[in-house]
Amino acid sequence: MSDNKIPYKIYLTEDEMPSSWYNLRADMKNKPAPLLNPGTHQPLTAEELSHVFCDELVKQELDDTTAYIEIPSEIREFYKMYRPSPLVRAYCLEEKLQTPAKIYYKFEGNNTSGSHKLNSAIAQAYYAKKQGLKGVTTETGAGQWGTALSMACSYFGLDCKVYMVKVSYEQKPFRREVMRTYGASVVPSPSDTTGVGRKILAEHPGTNGSLGCAISEAVEVASKDPGYRYVLGSVLNQVLLHQSVIGLETKAALDKYGIKPDIIIGCAGGGSNLGGLIAPFMGEKLKGEADYRIIAVEPASCPSFTRGTFAYDFCDTGMICPLAKMYTLGSSFMPSPNHAGGLRFHGMSSTLSQLYHDGLMEARSVDQVSVFEAAEQFARVEGILPAPESSHAIRAAIDEALKCKETGEAKTIVFGLTGTGYFDLYAYQKFNDGLMSDEIPTDEMIAASVAKLPRI
Amino acid sequence: MSDNKIPYKIYLTEDEMPSSWYNLRADMKNKPAPLLNPGTHQPLTAEELSHVFCDELVKQELDDTTAYIEIPSEIREFYKMYRPSPLVRAYCLEEKLQTPAKIYYKFEGNNTSGSHKLNSAIAQAYYAKKQGLKGVTTETGAGQWGTALSMACSYFGLDCKVYMVKVSYEQKPFRREVMRTYGASVVPSPSDTTGVGRKILAEHPGTNGSLGCAISEAVEVASKDPGYRYVLGSVLNQVLLHQSVIGLETKAALDKYGIKPDIIIGCAGGGSNLGGLIAPFMGEKLKGEADYRIIAVEPASCPSFTRGTFAYDFCDTGMICPLAKMYTLGSSFMPSPNHAGGLRFHGMSSTLSQLYHDGLMEARSVDQVSVFEAAEQFARVEGILPAPESSHAIRAAIDEALKCKETGEAKTIVFGLTGTGYFDLYAYQKFNDGLMSDEIPTDEMIAASVAKLPRI
Repeated sequence: MSDNKIPYKIYLTEDEMPSSWYNLRADMKNKPAPLLNPGTHQPLTAEELSHVFCDELVKQELDDTTAYIEIPSEIREFYKMYRPSPLVRAYCLEEKLQTPAKIYYKFEGNNTSGSHKLNSAIAQAYYAKKQGLKGVTTETGAGQWGTALSMACSYFGLDCKVYMVKVSYEQKPFRREVMRTYGASVVPSPSDTTGVGRKILAEHPGTNGSLGCAISEAVEVASKDPGYRYVLGSVLNQVLLHQSVIGLETKAALDKYGIKPDIIIGCAGGGSNLGGLIAPFMGEKLKGEADYRIIAVEPASCPSFTRGTFAYDFCDTGMICPLAKMYTLGSSFMPSPNHAGGLRFHGMSSTLSQLYHDGLMEARSVDQVSVFEAAEQFARVEGILPAPESSHAIRAAIDEALKCKETGEAKTIVFGLTGTGYFDLYAYQKFNDGLMSDEIPTDEMIAASVAKLPRI
Repeated sequence: MSDNKIPYKIYLTEDEMPSSWYNLRADMKNKPAPLLNPGTHQPLTAEELSHVFCDELVKQELDDTTAYIEIPSEIREFYKMYRPSPLVRAYCLEEKLQTPAKIYYKFEGNNTSGSHKLNSAIAQAYYAKKQGLKGVTTETGAGQWGTALSMACSYFGLDCKVYMVKVSYEQKPFRREVMRTYGASVVPSPSDTTGVGRKILAEHPGTNGSLGCAISEAVEVASKDPGYRYVLGSVLNQVLLHQSVIGLETKAALDKYGIKPDIIIGCAGGGSNLGGLIAPFMGEKLKGEADYRIIAVEPASCPSFTRGTFAYDFCDTGMICPLAKMYTLGSSFMPSPNHAGGLRFHGMSSTLSQLYHDGLMEARSVDQVSVFEAAEQFARVEGILPAPESSHAIRAAIDEALKCKETGEAKTIVFGLTGTGYFDLYAYQKFNDGLMSDEIPTDEMIAASVAKLPRI
């Protein structure tokens, strides 16, 4: 069934792995708007940010001019433990769909965190260690980020405190055990261990939590101990920078076989995977060197790109974090306890928001049942049980491939398969039992939380 | 940290993947003893076996003279979806142990079944499909085999009925959901759906089940419907044949870099991984072309090699299966509900038993707490959460590497990392909580079940 020239899996050699991350902002004419101090509404200085983030990460966060930033050798060594990740030609899916499209996916799930999150976790842990810190705090939604950070901290001997969105904590008890095996402590959020957690619990008794709540708690804990800093697995510029390793490897693998994609698809929650996957392609597009259709896919239950507002907003529910200009549903928006935990964020990366605002990429939202239908179809022919988050991209890739079947076009589609669904079996069980549904917010719900946006 | 010449992960190209399986028996002077009819005690004929197994698999089961058997192209295409698997140089583990030993592991866990079991599952499903059957029945212990078979059957459109050892069914509810996602039906064993299941339940009320029980049930179901055959994930000659792909790839990867192992280590339950991993190395040893130390590692709770008897015995608890000559604890032996489910089998492959009997390999047993200590240590430095079964091999590899540290010898150690522990988090939780123990059978317990061996 395979096309003779292209193997099922394209692996780069270790020598071909990128030695620098690519900082997409350097090539953007319209730079993403700066983070603002939530009190003064003035751009945050490096000094202010250094109370929250490690010094080197502050530098990366603020740097929108250096295109290539060298990956420290210690991080490159760690990357070699689980990278390069394969770029897979989905021959079996193509045959199943009977499509003339050529489908590729960059598979980031072949490591114990089960996703791409490890790419940034190891970088952030490295800089924390280098700065002589005792540990880091963070939030986790679906659990992939928390697991990745636990692994990275264990590798460098750092303490790791994880606030886990309550709905995920309950649906994924085994995630907690993986993190504990790597030595992390895990607290369901909102919790009574922080001031902001107690406040949220009082206002929303019985809440399922959200990424926004968990962020507030982790930031509060880090800000009270000078030996700790807060680290975040998505949204931030620094995270997109680290994740550019995904796109750089993808591009190198495609170039090796002379393949030029027509469409690039990624799921989007806070934007870490999508921003990393598209970085070098978007760079070419910005410089007029090539053109690509780029599609962000988000859940219909948390549609920040497709139904949100482009405005300054808090990154967290507790409103203690910096303000970012982004597509947002409002920081008080509480998504339904949708199983695709990693995409349950009210906002979106500033960089991606700016690119979307400038018409450089598309976005669409998909409902959960159709996402699991795509997941099951993919699993059965490609042999990988995908994460619900990743399955948003699978849904869109299958839809595009079916359009090609109608038109007869042999387009080349590349999508990001960010991870595996081995800890999402409650959700699969619901789907297998025919009990899955979706809760799509009404216009009134979104308007109500958008009305509470800060006035800048 | 890496040695310049050897990458962290050695991947073969698709062209370098083996095109034939290697049938170790062809090169054995002392052939494994034939299967006997349990009623007549005469060697089983192909005709008799064909009521239980597919015709082509019967041929493979009985063939002890053909050294190389071509892998059908359909199976080779499927292999390309998840193979070649990487041979990993454990640089980080070596550094952590401060050993001069060079450690490699062949990692079979990068597919959704989470283990090497898919190598034989796809072959057995292929031959069933080719014979025009409607479906297959099987048993599963830890769940890897059942998952692998579900995936393989889904790929070829075959019905799949899985009898899952009750203790694993309860400890691993999510395994069941993976199998269901692939369209299989899963029954906890012993069950009241078969005559033999009802009999075992009556004799051992509240039993946790065992692989032996589950085999009896699956065989009974298959024998009552001519559209079905029974398939088995371990023990049999045909399974070791299919699993030789592990050893052939390992040897090809080592040869590519001119590496000659001193010690080869594999965990052993029924012998599928160990038999596959060592096949080409043992072949060289049999022909006097090379020498290797080969070590089988089994759980102290189910020590068939180290404390069993070399004799004819039933492969199943219900005593309806053929008799195999093997190291056995007696088919009535009920192992403790040890978490390393895949190694809870009273017997051992006939081929491996003969090799062990002839002094061509060593065996040792290890207790469960020390196995999880090795698993945790490995996970933290190598970034992969290993399956409890695989961790038996890790334990022995670490022990050998530590001996090298004492003696200063830079031995090359290769072990099989058969799979991941993502569905074994109950066991990890017990270990994390300090509640793990082991139940090692007394001499009296083993003597009691061995006393019931059939008299041949």
